[in-house]
Amino acid sequence: MKPPLSMAGIFPPIPTPFDATGELDLKALAANLEKWNRYPLSGYVVLGTNGEFPYLTESEKLTYFEAARKHIPPTKLFMAGTACESTHSTIALTKKAAALGADVAILVTPSYYKSRMDAAGLSHYYLSVADVSPIPVSLYNMPANTTVDMPADLIIALSQHPNILGVKDSGGNLAKLGEIIRSARPGFQVLAGSAGFLYPALCVGAIGGVLALANIAPQQCCDIVSLFKHGKHEDARELQLRMIAPNTAVTARFGVPGLKAALDLLGYYGGPPRSPLLPLNDAQKDTLRSVLVGAGILGAGIGG
Amino acid sequence: MKPPLSMAGIFPPIPTPFDATGELDLKALAANLEKWNRYPLSGYVVLGTNGEFPYLTESEKLTYFEAARKHIPPTKLFMAGTACESTHSTIALTKKAAALGADVAILVTPSYYKSRMDAAGLSHYYLSVADVSPIPVSLYNMPANTTVDMPADLIIALSQHPNILGVKDSGGNLAKLGEIIRSARPGFQVLAGSAGFLYPALCVGAIGGVLALANIAPQQCCDIVSLFKHGKHEDARELQLRMIAPNTAVTARFGVPGLKAALDLLGYYGGPPRSPLLPLNDAQKDTLRSVLVGAGILGAGIGG
Amino acid sequence: MKPPLSMAGIFPPIPTPFDATGELDLKALAANLEKWNRYPLSGYVVLGTNGEFPYLTESEKLTYFEAARKHIPPTKLFMAGTACESTHSTIALTKKAAALGADVAILVTPSYYKSRMDAAGLSHYYLSVADVSPIPVSLYNMPANTTVDMPADLIIALSQHPNILGVKDSGGNLAKLGEIIRSARPGFQVLAGSAGFLYPALCVGAIGGVLALANIAPQQCCDIVSLFKHGKHEDARELQLRMIAPNTAVTARFGVPGLKAALDLLGYYGGPPRSPLLPLNDAQKDTLRSVLVGAGILGAGIGG
Amino acid sequence: MKPPLSMAGIFPPIPTPFDATGELDLKALAANLEKWNRYPLSGYVVLGTNGEFPYLTESEKLTYFEAARKHIPPTKLFMAGTACESTHSTIALTKKAAALGADVAILVTPSYYKSRMDAAGLSHYYLSVADVSPIPVSLYNMPANTTVDMPADLIIALSQHPNILGVKDSGGNLAKLGEIIRSARPGFQVLAGSAGFLYPALCVGAIGGVLALANIAPQQCCDIVSLFKHGKHEDARELQLRMIAPNTAVTARFGVPGLKAALDLLGYYGGPPRSPLLPLNDAQKDTLRSVLVGAGILGAGIGG
Repeated sequence: MKPPLSMAGIFPPIPTPFDATGELDLKALAANLEKWNRYPLSGYVVLGTNGEFPYLTESEKLTYFEAARKHIPPTKLFMAGTACESTHSTIALTKKAAALGADVAILVTPSYYKSRMDAAGLSHYYLSVADVSPIPVSLYNMPANTTVDMPADLIIALSQHPNILGVKDSGGNLAKLGEIIRSARPGFQVLAGSAGFLYPALCVGAIGGVLALANIAPQQCCDIVSLFKHGKHEDARELQLRMIAPNTAVTARFGVPGLKAALDLLGYYGGPPRSPLLPLNDAQKDTLRSVLVGAGILGAGIGG
Repeated sequence: MKPPLSMAGIFPPIPTPFDATGELDLKALAANLEKWNRYPLSGYVVLGTNGEFPYLTESEKLTYFEAARKHIPPTKLFMAGTACESTHSTIALTKKAAALGADVAILVTPSYYKSRMDAAGLSHYYLSVADVSPIPVSLYNMPANTTVDMPADLIIALSQHPNILGVKDSGGNLAKLGEIIRSARPGFQVLAGSAGFLYPALCVGAIGGVLALANIAPQQCCDIVSLFKHGKHEDARELQLRMIAPNTAVTARFGVPGLKAALDLLGYYGGPPRSPLLPLNDAQKDTLRSVLVGAGILGAGIGG
Repeated sequence: MKPPLSMAGIFPPIPTPFDATGELDLKALAANLEKWNRYPLSGYVVLGTNGEFPYLTESEKLTYFEAARKHIPPTKLFMAGTACESTHSTIALTKKAAALGADVAILVTPSYYKSRMDAAGLSHYYLSVADVSPIPVSLYNMPANTTVDMPADLIIALSQHPNILGVKDSGGNLAKLGEIIRSARPGFQVLAGSAGFLYPALCVGAIGGVLALANIAPQQCCDIVSLFKHGKHEDARELQLRMIAPNTAVTARFGVPGLKAALDLLGYYGGPPRSPLLPLNDAQKDTLRSVLVGAGILGAGIGG
Repeated sequence: MKPPLSMAGIFPPIPTPFDATGELDLKALAANLEKWNRYPLSGYVVLGTNGEFPYLTESEKLTYFEAARKHIPPTKLFMAGTACESTHSTIALTKKAAALGADVAILVTPSYYKSRMDAAGLSHYYLSVADVSPIPVSLYNMPANTTVDMPADLIIALSQHPNILGVKDSGGNLAKLGEIIRSARPGFQVLAGSAGFLYPALCVGAIGGVLALANIAPQQCCDIVSLFKHGKHEDARELQLRMIAPNTAVTARFGVPGLKAALDLLGYYGGPPRSPLLPLNDAQKDTLRSVLVGAGILGAGIGG
C-alpha cells in the first residue's frame, strides 16, 4: 500500500499571471516557478484564492494546470484548486486536473447558498467528491471570502474518509485547529492558511502552511518551519513576529492586488489582477514597499 | 428615440428544472412557463439566485437561455442573470444572452473577493459592463447570499449611466430604497427583491418586484400591485400580511429546495436541486405544505 | 375594566441634557419639553438609547424621571426606559419609575451575554418583569446597539402576556413587522423604531413610532402619521422620502452626538454627550447643518 | 522607582456566588478562594465577564470587592473589573476599588454605542481613566460579548501610557497578539483571554492568561505555563489540546451557567446565575460532566 502523500511544509498559493490585455501569461508563470523552485518549498497551490480562480473560465483553468505541471518538478506537490459551486462541476474539474498531473485537489467550501451550506450540505459535497476523485482531496476553509466557516466537528467527521488528506484552515482560530488535531483521524494533515499564525499553528500540531506570504518570502516561511522543527522556538518566534505586518499587507489589507504588486517589486512577475479587482494606486504601492522594507523582505535601496 | 424598457410589475425568478439525473429538463421548463404565462406577470428572471445560476456551466446557461426565449412571449420581459465573478466573463455572457434574445441583463454583485468589492470595484464592474452591453442592465443587490451590500450612494451614482435601467434590492431596507428613489436619476426603476416587503416597497415608490414567491403565488403577487395601484391600501395590506409566511418558507427558511418542493406540491415541475443543495426531507415538506395551506396558496385537500 | 393604554402616534426618545461639567441639566430638560409639548406628539420616551441611559447612575435616573414627569402633561404618555441587564434590577427600577409616575416601561433586550439571550432567556426576562410591573411593558428591539435581534416568533409569543402592551422595533425589517402584526395578540401595538421607515411601517399596520428624528422634526413626523390616516398616501410618501437623509444623519451616521448637535442648531438644548461619546467636530457639524437645510428642517439662513 | 506590577501567570476570572434567593453569597466566595489559593495562580479577576459584573449594583460591587480583598493573599494580584459604560462612572468605581485594595483595574471596552466606539472614542475612554486611576489599568478586549474588537494599532498606541499595564485579549487572533507584542511599548504585558489558545499565545510572547477554565482546572492551566517556560513544548502542547474541549464547554457552549455548574460538580460553590442567565438543564449538565471526565478534570466516578 502506498503511503499517503505528505503536505508537510510550505506551499505558496501562487497568483495567476495575466498580461496587459488580461490574458493568461504562461511565460510569466514559468519564470516565476523557476525562481520559486530554488527554495525549499514543498509545492504549490495552483488556482487558490490568491490565484483568482473565480475569474478563469474552465478552459483557461485546464490550460493553466497543464502549464503549471510542466514547471513544477516531481519532487514538489502540485495542489490544484478545483472547487466549483456545484458538486458535479467540482468532480468533473477534479478529474481533469488529475489527468493533467495534479497531485491533490484542494477544495474551498461552496458558499453562494451559504444558509444551506450546513454540515449536511458540506458533507454531501466533500464526500461525493472524495468518493470518486482519482487524487486525494484537501479541505479548504476560507471564511474571510466565503463567510462559511466549517466547524471543527464537521472537519473531524470528514477526516474519516480515506481520500480526504487534510485541511487548510485560514480562519486563524487556534483552539479549533487544536481540536481538529486532537480528534481527527490519526494522520489527518492540518495546514495553517495564513502566515500570520504559522508558528503558533505549528506549536499546536499543524505540519505546514499554504501561505500567500510564501510567494514573496519563501525562505522566511520555510525557516519558521525549520526553526520550529529544530526546537529553536525563540528564533522561530522572532521571525514569525517580523512576518506579521508584511503578511497583513498582502492579505487583509491589500489583497491579491497587493500580492501582485509585491511580486513586481521583488523581481517576480505580478502584473494586473483581473477586473473587478483593481491594481494598487501609487500611494498604496508606497505603503506596501515600506512594509516590505521594514520586514527585511525588500532591500531598502531596491524596488524604487 | 426608443422609450426605456419598463420593469414595472411582477417577475418570478424561475427555478431551473433538473431531471432525476441532474440534467437540464427543458420540457419541464416549457410546461412551467406555459402555466406562468397565463398570469399577468410582467416577465421572468432566468438564472437568478433561485435559478441556481452558480451550478450551471456556461454551455448549459446558453442552452437554457435559448429555450427560455422560445417559451417567453414577446409581451413579457426576459431578464437574464448573466453575472460572473469577473467583468470579462460577465460581458461575454451578457453579449451571448442578448444575442439569444434576452431583454435585460440582471447582474448580482461579484462577491468572492468581498473585502475589495467596495464602491471603486463595483463601479468598475457595472460601468464596464453597461458601457458595452447591447441590452440594458439591472443592478441586483442580494446581501443574504453575497454578504456584499451595495450602499444607496453607490446605486444612486450608478443610476446616472444611461444603460443601467434599475435595481432589484433584496436587502429589505426600506429607508435605503426610499433614499434611492428620492435621489437616483429620474426614471431609475426600483424593484423589491422579496415578497415579504413588496407592498411597503410599492408605498415608498418601487414599481414592482422580482419575487421567489411569484413562482408559486403569481396571482397574489400581481394582485398586491394592482390593489396598490387602485388605492385599495387596506386590501393590499391584508394580502401582503398573508403572503409573508409562505414567502419566508420558500426563501430564508427552506431556500431553493423549498421553492422547488412547493412547485411540486402545486402541480408545476420543481424537481431536485443540484448538489450540494439537498432536497427537503419529509418533515420539512409537511411543514411547507401546511404553511402553503395556511396562506391559501394550496387547497387544504390537495398536495397530499 | 380600564381600556389599554394607547401608544399610537409619535414619541421622541429624548436626549438627556448634560451641562458643561457633565451633570444632568434639568432646566434644559424643562425648556426642551416646553417646546416639544406644543407639537401633537403622543408622548416621550425618557432614557431610551438616545437618552444615553447606560451613562446614568440609578440615582440620576430617578431624579431625571421625577423631573420629566413634572414637565410631561398628563395628556401625553411618559414611557420610561427602565431596562437593566439583570431581571432583578430591571424590576426594581421599573417599580420606582412607576412610583414616580411613568406610564409605560419600555425595555430594551439585555445583551451583554448575547449568546445566551435566546428565546428562553429573553422570555424569562420579559415575563418576569411583566408579571410584577405596576405599569404596562413595551418590548424594545434595537439590534444596531445590542446585536440581539428578537425574532418575530418570540415577540408573538410574548404578546400573549396581558401586561405586555406592544413593541418598538428598530431593526427595519418590514416583513418581520408584518408577521408580528398578523399573528400577535389582537391589540398588540407595534411601533416603528426609526423614522427612516415610518410610513411603510404604518402601511403594514404599525400605529406610530419612537423616532430620534421626532426630536428635531416633530411636526413632520406627526404629519406623516396624519397624512397616512387621511389616505393621502402620495403626500405621506413624499414627506417620508424627504425625512430619510436627516434621519440617517442623527442616527446611523452621527449618532447621539449628531442628534444633540442638531438640537443645538434648532434652538433646543442639545449640549455635550457624556464620554466616551464625543461631540461632533466642526466639519461634521457643517455636514449635519447642510443635511438639515436640505430637508427643510433648518432654515437656510439659520443656525450659523 | 517601583517596578511595574507583573501580570505573568494564570488568573481565573472568578464567578460571583449567589445564594438560592439570588443574593451575594460571601461565605461561598471565601470558601472558593480558600481552595483556589492552594494553587500556584498569580491572582484573580474579580467581576469580569464570568463574574456577571453587569448584574451587580454598584453597592453590591463594593461589598464584593471588599470581601474578595480579605480572602486574596497579598502575594496574589487582585484585578478588579471596574468598567462601566461611561468614563465618569468607570473612574469613580475604579477609585473606590483601589481604596478597597484592588491592585489592577481591568477594563472591558464600553460597547452599547458600538458604532461610535472607534479609536477616538476608546482612546478617550482609556486615557481618561488611566490618567487619574490610582492603580494600573489593564485593557480588556472581549469581542464575543461586546462586538467591539480593539484593533492592534489602537492597543499599541494605548500601550504608550505609563499607567496602562497590558491587555487581556479574548479574541483569539494570534497574528494580532503577535503584532501587539512586536510593536507595543517594551514591557507591555499581553494575556491570553481564553484557555483555548493559551499555549500558542505563550509561544508568540504572551506572559499568561485570564482564563475561565482556570476556575475549574487551575493546576492544568498553571502547568501549561510552567511546561512552556521549561521548554517542554510537546508536553505543553498535549496538555493544551486536552484542555480545549472543557474550555469550550464552560465558555462558548454553556457560558457562565456552564462554568457555575462545573464548579458545583467539582466541589466548589457554583450556584445559580442571575436571571436572565438560566441554569443548565439536566441534559446539559450530563454533557458537561462527560466533557470534564473526558478531559481528566473530573474523576470518572465522581460528580454523580
